[in-house]
Amino acid sequence: MSRVQDRPFSFTITDRDPQTKGRLGTLHTAHGDIPTPVFMPVGTAGSVKAVTFDQVASTGSRIILGNTYHLHLRPGHELIEKLGGLHRFQGWDGAILTDSAGFQVFSLSDLVKISEEGVKFRSHLDGARLFFTPEKSMEIQLGLGADIVMAFDQCVAADADPREVAHGVDRTSRWLRRCLEAFVPCRRHHKAGYERVLFGIMQGGTDPAERRRSAEDIVTLDLPGYAIGGLSVGEPKPVLHEMTGVAAALLPDEKPRYLMGVGYPDDILEAVVAGVDMFDCVLPTRMARTGSVLTWDGRLVVKNQEHAQDDGPIDSSCPCPTCRGHSRAYIRHLFQARELLGPMLVTQHNLWFYQELMRGIRQAIAAGQLADYARKVRARWDEGEQQRLDDVARRKPGGRSR
Amino acid sequence: MSRVQDRPFSFTITDRDPQTKGRLGTLHTAHGDIPTPVFMPVGTAGSVKAVTFDQVASTGSRIILGNTYHLHLRPGHELIEKLGGLHRFQGWDGAILTDSAGFQVFSLSDLVKISEEGVKFRSHLDGARLFFTPEKSMEIQLGLGADIVMAFDQCVAADADPREVAHGVDRTSRWLRRCLEAFVPCRRHHKAGYERVLFGIMQGGTDPAERRRSAEDIVTLDLPGYAIGGLSVGEPKPVLHEMTGVAAALLPDEKPRYLMGVGYPDDILEAVVAGVDMFDCVLPTRMARTGSVLTWDGRLVVKNQEHAQDDGPIDSSCPCPTCRGHSRAYIRHLFQARELLGPMLVTQHNLWFYQELMRGIRQAIAAGQLADYARKVRARWDEGEQQRLDDVARRKPGGRSR
Repeated sequence: MSRVQDRPFSFTITDRDPQTKGRLGTLHTAHGDIPTPVFMPVGTAGSVKAVTFDQVASTGSRIILGNTYHLHLRPGHELIEKLGGLHRFQGWDGAILTDSAGFQVFSLSDLVKISEEGVKFRSHLDGARLFFTPEKSMEIQLGLGADIVMAFDQCVAADADPREVAHGVDRTSRWLRRCLEAFVPCRRHHKAGYERVLFGIMQGGTDPAERRRSAEDIVTLDLPGYAIGGLSVGEPKPVLHEMTGVAAALLPDEKPRYLMGVGYPDDILEAVVAGVDMFDCVLPTRMARTGSVLTWDGRLVVKNQEHAQDDGPIDSSCPCPTCRGHSRAYIRHLFQARELLGPMLVTQHNLWFYQELMRGIRQAIAAGQLADYARKVRARWDEGEQQRLDDVARRKPGGRSR
Repeated sequence: MSRVQDRPFSFTITDRDPQTKGRLGTLHTAHGDIPTPVFMPVGTAGSVKAVTFDQVASTGSRIILGNTYHLHLRPGHELIEKLGGLHRFQGWDGAILTDSAGFQVFSLSDLVKISEEGVKFRSHLDGARLFFTPEKSMEIQLGLGADIVMAFDQCVAADADPREVAHGVDRTSRWLRRCLEAFVPCRRHHKAGYERVLFGIMQGGTDPAERRRSAEDIVTLDLPGYAIGGLSVGEPKPVLHEMTGVAAALLPDEKPRYLMGVGYPDDILEAVVAGVDMFDCVLPTRMARTGSVLTWDGRLVVKNQEHAQDDGPIDSSCPCPTCRGHSRAYIRHLFQARELLGPMLVTQHNLWFYQELMRGIRQAIAAGQLADYARKVRARWDEGEQQRLDDVARRKPGGRSR
């Protein structure tokens, strides 16, 4: 890890869009500077699925996400720590953010029992009993050695009743204090030669008053960054967009804002306009493995028959190696023949697409034209997606065109 | 395909090892010069499994193999021809050799009916009836556009009786003439702006007299190259090595000699010493997908528990990206977690290993030290393999150590 630098974590805002809340910034970490707004590819179990880390880096990614729950189960954070931490273990010298396992506990396990102490649940791998607490989450994340550690929060479902939502806010606040206690000294953890920082997570479901209550509490702790949790859990898109705006405005202007688990290009554009700086989502990598290609004109299902004889690339304007080297017909063939190269090439493209989108967003902010850029990109994306959905409906018996 | 050159195919021998029959040469093709002895990675269905073509090229590979049978079934050679040929279709600007489907017919299908006209069998994909003839094989391979086209031969099993072996030799000879007829004019086929050549295949099982009979017939046709077929079909290793020597000596010195489907490093070393120039084998790619790593000390099963905490690379002397970037512990984890990156990284390493072996062989020939090089590499490989087999036996109940 020759590139690691022992310097304090900081976030600087270098430019602001005049017409929106969008801002251009830099996250300064021990593992490099990261221009924001940033999209972080998800490296769930120590690998960004179906690509090498060289390929991830070549898309322009400087920070990726690691998954506390998955890495704790396999191969175990003790082993990773023993072997020099997650950066070294997986061979990635950029920055790493680890989630807290709070969301996985919420989404993966059927058998969850939540108490004030923590969460009892069963491993999705072998059914083994597990007990996650704020302290345990910190222990794991500090062992992994992420540059940015996330607080252990309690996420509630999109259809949770008001009492549950309020309860989640309160518990998340209490747990954040326990995280911080485990994370001392000085709210910044210094170990193995570089600094790691703890980000707090806001909850509050889709209730603006609860969002405010959550924000007002956690910002008193003056953490180096804050995340918006509990969105993208099943609520309708307009609600996601509205709540993103509400939540972002409640977080301190000078701190990085991170919208967890979001999302589609239109969701990211909405959030950047609302002043969000950081994103992560499994979408580009997960979709790639089923042959869903992301383009400026929406999703393209490359396995469809219509691409069988198409000699052109996925996107002739895309600079990625997949588009420069291969046709739609070829990529379709790879999926038909179940060749691993299919998911590999589409993952590469989808990650490039997201980084191209983020580069476009940053350029637009620098040029003071974010609103215009967001409108144009959204219009094209929405039109393409509508077209695709119409096509799907037309093909289905009983679909719209009948 | 900017690198394609319209020039005659040729083979030049540039150096000879003084103590063995090993020779250094160059295959001059329309898609580049290829130093020999050469190992050709197998790109069965339009993809060298689990690696990108950039990664294949970075190992030093300048020629790969394509599979007539698989590509005929899916996506179909007509489509590939329509889209500009196999080089363009898969995005590979190096040279391509296609097999004739003779071996797949022999190895894949349970329901084969061979007549003088050709081979009736069923698709392994959907059971569809197929009929392959020498003419059909040429049509497919010319449609694919390989630089080197292989004759459609009749391969017989290792345990075939003498009559079958003799019959296979005769039929292969007759079929070779039909291939050539379909391949005219001038024994070299010129189409789509570059020259393709036809290689003949020798059969004859493990009978030196039949090998001689086969060779004496096919060399009268003065083809640009000759292959040794019908080995590596189940015969014991010493027989393979002995027959390789017999067969190679029967082929013209000035033409490239290609030992089809072989093999392990020790097999390749034996064959180079006997004067063989070209090799292909699925071994490095197929083994990689189950976590078998090839090293100078034999196979290493990276999934084994003993590597769980091993921070070192597979091979500290290996220049490949896998060994420069990742530990055994990490690669083991990837296989445990069924991450695609596991097969990807090991495939890359295994292909590098084979190309390093071939580079070592070529350097040894240039230095006039092939015998010494082959002996040392074989000794180390054999010792490592013996150790591995002993370990396996020790672990098994009822194994040697009990």
